[in-house]
Amino acid sequence: MIHEFLIRTKEKTQVVDLTEKVAAIVQRQGGEGICCVYVPHATAAIVINENADPNIGLDLLDALAALVPEGKWRHDRIDDNAAAHIKAAILGPGETIPYGDGRLLLGRWQSVMLVELDGPRERKVLVRAA
Amino acid sequence: MIHEFLIRTKEKTQVVDLTEKVAAIVQRQGGEGICCVYVPHATAAIVINENADPNIGLDLLDALAALVPEGKWRHDRIDDNAAAHIKAAILGPGETIPYGDGRLLLGRWQSVMLVELDGPRERKVLVRAA
Amino acid sequence: MIHEFLIRTKEKTQVVDLTEKVAAIVQRQGGEGICCVYVPHATAAIVINENADPNIGLDLLDALAALVPEGKWRHDRIDDNAAAHIKAAILGPGETIPYGDGRLLLGRWQSVMLVELDGPRERKVLVRAA
Repeated sequence: MIHEFLIRTKEKTQVVDLTEKVAAIVQRQGGEGICCVYVPHATAAIVINENADPNIGLDLLDALAALVPEGKWRHDRIDDNAAAHIKAAILGPGETIPYGDGRLLLGRWQSVMLVELDGPRERKVLVRAA
Repeated sequence: MIHEFLIRTKEKTQVVDLTEKVAAIVQRQGGEGICCVYVPHATAAIVINENADPNIGLDLLDALAALVPEGKWRHDRIDDNAAAHIKAAILGPGETIPYGDGRLLLGRWQSVMLVELDGPRERKVLVRAA
Repeated sequence: MIHEFLIRTKEKTQVVDLTEKVAAIVQRQGGEGICCVYVPHATAAIVINENADPNIGLDLLDALAALVPEGKWRHDRIDDNAAAHIKAAILGPGETIPYGDGRLLLGRWQSVMLVELDGPRERKVLVRAA
């Protein structure tokens, strides 16, 4: 079964922790396998990293802004969000995480996070555990 | 069953849309699961992003060229394509996409694309849906 | 079954080839499927690229050091390793590789590698093939 839920982002760029929602789906599924977390969007991404210090998400957004400046791309002539597309392509729309005994095998310092790159928007997250 | 097909790229760097070919494999497979799209190459990658405006692929290639300049790396003394390897390592060789009812659950603005980073070459694409 | 093994890294940043260890797990598993290789850490990553010339790993580490400078991030005020977190988020903690007849379908120039970004440390690697 493929689960889905919605996230409403509030900023132009923002990191949203999805760990609890994904963990609850994996717990209901139970057993062992791999869990695919996927955003069906071209200006958002999924990353896994530390959120105990939420500054890390802000640092990631700052680093991406420095690496991929806005407003200098071909696609900006059509829709003013080329940098968001480029960042999303580099980060990727999904991550695949092993789980056992109905528990995501994330490390102590790992959270599953949605990266909003062209918000605010409503984003869909797909989760498949099997 | 693992499916494979070949893509002949024509440029040094190029983005090739694989969505139709991957969708056809998933449709023949039917049902629900995850689809792994993988290139067994060290100077090519798989990304998922918008191709409705093909400028996005060109913008991605330009951004990568600016981030990873050519000709200044150790491996260039052996084979003159270190930048292609570095870009491929950052983007990654595969993406995993959920599907349901024999249909890839890509978003409206998502295409599955091969990124050629050291062409022109013949590239193999592996697809496993289950 | 989810397999795990430990890697003790020796440098601040380092690339460690995991291909033999992962291939042995897939061979014992046999048959066909996908293999998920995952590090439960927020300052390490998994990449797939060439290791026949180990300079490529060093070039990747140099490129990442140039893209994400140290010492200028919010998280550095708490723990002096923000750059390692940012690089790990960009590279990602895992890769998923198809296999057939108990053999990883890596390309001739592909190795599975752990990227240490804040070592030396003991790192855990999880492998699930099914």
